[in-house]
Amino acid sequence: MAVGLGPLPTLHPVPGFELGIASAGIKRVGRKDVVVMRCAEGSRVAGVFTLNAFCAAPVILAKQRAQGEVRYLLTNTGNANAGTGEPGLRAAERTCAKLAELTGVAASAVLPYSTGVIGEPLPVEKIEAALPAALADLAEDHWAQAAEGIMTTDTLPKGASRQFQHDGVTVTVTGISKGAGMIRPNMATMLGYIATDAKVARDVLQDLVRDAANKSFNRITIDGDTSTNDCCMLIATGKANLPEITAASGELFAKLKQAVFEVFMEVAQSIVRDGEGATKFVTVQVNGGGTHQECLDVGYAVAHSPLIKTALFASDPNWGRILAAVGRAGVPQLDVGKIDVYLGEVCIASQGGRASTYTEEQGAAVMAQAEITIRIELGRGACSETIWTTDLSHEYVKINAEYRT
Amino acid sequence: MAVGLGPLPTLHPVPGFELGIASAGIKRVGRKDVVVMRCAEGSRVAGVFTLNAFCAAPVILAKQRAQGEVRYLLTNTGNANAGTGEPGLRAAERTCAKLAELTGVAASAVLPYSTGVIGEPLPVEKIEAALPAALADLAEDHWAQAAEGIMTTDTLPKGASRQFQHDGVTVTVTGISKGAGMIRPNMATMLGYIATDAKVARDVLQDLVRDAANKSFNRITIDGDTSTNDCCMLIATGKANLPEITAASGELFAKLKQAVFEVFMEVAQSIVRDGEGATKFVTVQVNGGGTHQECLDVGYAVAHSPLIKTALFASDPNWGRILAAVGRAGVPQLDVGKIDVYLGEVCIASQGGRASTYTEEQGAAVMAQAEITIRIELGRGACSETIWTTDLSHEYVKINAEYRT
Repeated sequence: MAVGLGPLPTLHPVPGFELGIASAGIKRVGRKDVVVMRCAEGSRVAGVFTLNAFCAAPVILAKQRAQGEVRYLLTNTGNANAGTGEPGLRAAERTCAKLAELTGVAASAVLPYSTGVIGEPLPVEKIEAALPAALADLAEDHWAQAAEGIMTTDTLPKGASRQFQHDGVTVTVTGISKGAGMIRPNMATMLGYIATDAKVARDVLQDLVRDAANKSFNRITIDGDTSTNDCCMLIATGKANLPEITAASGELFAKLKQAVFEVFMEVAQSIVRDGEGATKFVTVQVNGGGTHQECLDVGYAVAHSPLIKTALFASDPNWGRILAAVGRAGVPQLDVGKIDVYLGEVCIASQGGRASTYTEEQGAAVMAQAEITIRIELGRGACSETIWTTDLSHEYVKINAEYRT
Repeated sequence: MAVGLGPLPTLHPVPGFELGIASAGIKRVGRKDVVVMRCAEGSRVAGVFTLNAFCAAPVILAKQRAQGEVRYLLTNTGNANAGTGEPGLRAAERTCAKLAELTGVAASAVLPYSTGVIGEPLPVEKIEAALPAALADLAEDHWAQAAEGIMTTDTLPKGASRQFQHDGVTVTVTGISKGAGMIRPNMATMLGYIATDAKVARDVLQDLVRDAANKSFNRITIDGDTSTNDCCMLIATGKANLPEITAASGELFAKLKQAVFEVFMEVAQSIVRDGEGATKFVTVQVNGGGTHQECLDVGYAVAHSPLIKTALFASDPNWGRILAAVGRAGVPQLDVGKIDVYLGEVCIASQGGRASTYTEEQGAAVMAQAEITIRIELGRGACSETIWTTDLSHEYVKINAEYRT
């Protein structure tokens, strides 16, 4: 049911970054559920992590260890290792220690990532047993296989890739992501890995992952449920034969930033396009806000409203539900007489009421499309924010009612 | 599909308060959709109203006019007269003026209430034409008919009644409510009318409606969507032969308060029991909070989570979703190691992780029930809050996808 999401595009290999996939049989025998990623020596890694207070054991470890030297990222699906307390932390450490032992690196150079059911013990032995096969599979051109290996309720793998030239050198940025439910990233998303062969100063890399995630992963929502396991990692292997990029790097930094932002945006939006039960890809654009926060409050009130989401599913231009959501978003001293609302290019509400030019047929024509933009003009200031979301379908209820069966 | 909601209980007439029902054919010919309520001369009326910034035209008028003498409450279903701007306000004034003309009272003594589709013009002529029939139908024992007359997507009428004795005099409190969707009342709910024949000082009546609504209507949520038309009115006709109740009235005030609170709670919970598509009646109890607000934040995060609501629908004790919702509720410095979670009497999570005594069978047994309590112990302080909500079923999506067809 994914909306406008086709087969994976070409995912250019990133020199110095290899991916290996194996099957540990965590949830189903034969399913690819373990992915090992190897970063070349000297790589720099920066990440953003969930702000959910119940953050999972692997998130706690990965967050700590991302501060030091990073050589391996170890991901499993089928089990989130969240809500597992102290034993969960020990379990995550054990899988990392095993990978370290097999590869001769320090245990602290291995970062764990888990996704799947919350609250069940991590099957450590199964994961350990799959590591040799994953290591044997390591290759720079295994991005597509890894994109499949990190899927849970996703129906399609998600990835994006960009290249640019600088001083005759080709620089690559490639990324993959997963996630279809429990998606309202807060500082990161349910697993995103983006790598580049550019050489990037540590502080620049950290700013880049934060800024790119803020404009992409942190602006998508499927169900409003921030996950316990959100992680988004940006890896720079430094293999491209170019000087180190610092904040003062001018054109080279600008090119890298654009490529990184584009890859982040594409893989983040892919998560929405493949949202659980999604039949619509919805852009909620809020303009004219006095602050960015009030634009976000309005945008999320609209994006999370079950009434709007079911109307979107039904292709019903029930715009009164949009006004109601804007009105309850908690914006102080909101003057509804200044608000305009657009469905696509059609003005449905003007100065807080039904637009005199609006006809139900116009609204229905926009709602019939698979990709819809709801634009809200608050008329209070110059701030804007954009959020991407899905509709709420029968299939969503079915998927989530049957998730563990 | 209503949960634990039977036929209407006996609704005792309130001396001095009459109700009349008629059919204006607003949405469907023959449907009872206009209700007129008459308050005896000298009655006092207090109300609480939606905080949605897009509050409907009738809410604006009713709020203003509740300050003065009130003789009639005029309710229509099938059209919310919300998002209708200045013309909507004129339309509401016209229906009130017509009723005033027919009854010889001041137009300002008529308060309008509307519920139904947002954003369509109010069919003033149809309502005006139905007023004589509604007036001819006025009677003190028409509470049950009025409870049906204010229904929209409700499957059952909702009402409650209490009586108490004081100095040999019987005092009655009777109320009705409607609402099944767009329910997260904020200071009030989607139409509640509660009347008593006690004589109550104006300031006491206002405090009473606010306090009772805060503990009842303002603690229920079906979909998180605060309506544009929420109103809850408390009418005191003063016909009971007792002294006026003031804050200093001691035992009489205490008895009235208890009866009023009980009626408010029963009609508010009835709304949840008849929530759109509801198959479960869910109590979310949050204890041990440092503040009431953080208890509410946690309670609403749980009550609004589509993942928890679909798990409840599936009777799946997927308690990891509860932990995840608690973790993202935004409670500052939340120590997850102090959190216990109970399903009914079963401890499912202790100190932030799976309880060692917990078995899936225990959880499944609780989830199989139609009425479920989720209790969260935060271990931070002495504050508690309770919220009532429903699950999220296929039927919910169906109802809201087909609402206007």
